[in-house]
Amino acid sequence: MKEFELIRQRLAHLSRHDGALQLGDDVSTLPKSEKIQIITTDTLVEGVHFLSDDPMYTVGQKLVRVNVSDCLAKAARPTSAMFNLSWPSNRPETDLTNLIDGLAADLEFWNIDLIGGDTTGSQSGVTLTLTLIGDCQKSAPVRRSGAQVEDDVWITGEIGSAFLGLRRRLSGVTPNSSDPLVSAFLVPPLQPVAVSSLIADFAHASMDVSDGLIADAEHLAEQSGVSLQIELDRVPLHAAANKDLRAGLVEKVSLLTGGDDYQVLFTASPTDQELIRKAAAARDVSVTCIGSVQAGSGVKVRDSEGNPITILTSGWQHEF
Amino acid sequence: MKEFELIRQRLAHLSRHDGALQLGDDVSTLPKSEKIQIITTDTLVEGVHFLSDDPMYTVGQKLVRVNVSDCLAKAARPTSAMFNLSWPSNRPETDLTNLIDGLAADLEFWNIDLIGGDTTGSQSGVTLTLTLIGDCQKSAPVRRSGAQVEDDVWITGEIGSAFLGLRRRLSGVTPNSSDPLVSAFLVPPLQPVAVSSLIADFAHASMDVSDGLIADAEHLAEQSGVSLQIELDRVPLHAAANKDLRAGLVEKVSLLTGGDDYQVLFTASPTDQELIRKAAAARDVSVTCIGSVQAGSGVKVRDSEGNPITILTSGWQHEF
Repeated sequence: MKEFELIRQRLAHLSRHDGALQLGDDVSTLPKSEKIQIITTDTLVEGVHFLSDDPMYTVGQKLVRVNVSDCLAKAARPTSAMFNLSWPSNRPETDLTNLIDGLAADLEFWNIDLIGGDTTGSQSGVTLTLTLIGDCQKSAPVRRSGAQVEDDVWITGEIGSAFLGLRRRLSGVTPNSSDPLVSAFLVPPLQPVAVSSLIADFAHASMDVSDGLIADAEHLAEQSGVSLQIELDRVPLHAAANKDLRAGLVEKVSLLTGGDDYQVLFTASPTDQELIRKAAAARDVSVTCIGSVQAGSGVKVRDSEGNPITILTSGWQHEF
Repeated sequence: MKEFELIRQRLAHLSRHDGALQLGDDVSTLPKSEKIQIITTDTLVEGVHFLSDDPMYTVGQKLVRVNVSDCLAKAARPTSAMFNLSWPSNRPETDLTNLIDGLAADLEFWNIDLIGGDTTGSQSGVTLTLTLIGDCQKSAPVRRSGAQVEDDVWITGEIGSAFLGLRRRLSGVTPNSSDPLVSAFLVPPLQPVAVSSLIADFAHASMDVSDGLIADAEHLAEQSGVSLQIELDRVPLHAAANKDLRAGLVEKVSLLTGGDDYQVLFTASPTDQELIRKAAAARDVSVTCIGSVQAGSGVKVRDSEGNPITILTSGWQHEF
């Protein structure tokens, strides 16, 4: 267990909150905040959320980002983290230090204070949990349940790249290739933290896309008691994904149902459309209006001629 | 993944805090509290912290208790929990429902509100994380670092039973035997929640014993910059452990260095000795004074004649 003491030492500098005592006690106090605080947690499992030969540095980054994504989509800024590590003794120690370095780099990038955690052995694969606390940008997090009929449906960033990146990894592309799709799978490219204030200012309902755009849109529609109509050709794709699409290597519907994109899906009043575009540009946030909210239930996808497209599997749960 | 939706439904009734939205959104708000709040987390791994054929019901209880133990030792009352589950698809669904039932029973017993979590698959064993938030009984948690020279050293409950329970399990005793030592390994018997106010009122330094009494005493001594002297014959043992001891089946030193006991080790002023005994009795808390704090460093153990006893391995990290 000596390596775990080493890890604690390597992580201690990330702990600036007095109540965390540099991770040297059994508990931390929660940092004081004038704002309403939210809490969220996600677990990444070897062989389920990342491949065994994915670089541990990027796995550490991904662990931070899948949680940051939840905070941002709910209009909160992440502030503090708890980190739980279960590590098999038969993996090289360099893998462990790379994991910690990637985790540390991303916590610093997002200005997140590490306030506690736990390290254990594992008799099998690596299991990682991060729990994030964040400050709401207004009096409550923006929920899945607030979408209103006639709202616009918006998505940040681009869709489909992580799904194609995983396909490439599974077909043998090495993780250190310069392929931007592989990079998007390894380290989800998130919007800047200022997206949280955009969501706070305009969104009626919001959530992060992580299980696939259509599946997550279905969750939002269900919680809001509405139907979401999505125009297939308005969904923004990464240039490399577009290339695969034109080459007939993938169907667009697969990109919309693939997972791991970590963008924000939100709805807002159509009267705010221009304000949202301007506010997003001012924050370096990429947004695209991809559809509208209607009475009813479920998600309806239409092609460029307005014809409905049947989605057989809305979301995609990977177990490699 | 449908079973995970089932699990969410089974857990939803444990979520009473409005901000948790019955676990139906991506984040929960943190419950408001007038008190200083602490946060702590522990992970349990199959084959490391519990045996693969331990009953899942008791594993669920143990997950709650190893975290509650940290709260109580720091003079806090647990209030809210996040639960992360990584579950292999090849285990029977009855194991999963038993786990959830045991977790739910213990959360209800300790009056803890479930406010969030994550469920994932696993390609290997079961990994469980619980993160607890608690209310401090005074303005700050009681730390490891406050021990003062001439303080008494106290321990709650009894020591050594979980270690012997694990030994019995590993030698083939089934978990459903009525052996109290096996029970103490499966479900750590904690002090009542009122121990937190006893610690708040009297303790200068405090921590829970979980890695072995001597190893944890060393941590407390180090953080406080003092030496702890422990009188071997004053350490209280479970009756069944005493029986093993008299039969020569185990050495007392092994019991002091075994893990998994989950009692509270604390120091307090010797002038408070009688007050502590009375306050403990009024709270149904079992306490024993087992030594004193002295200048210096490290832990010194003495036998009944005052002779020093050499401890070769202070703590015991089990990997089965």
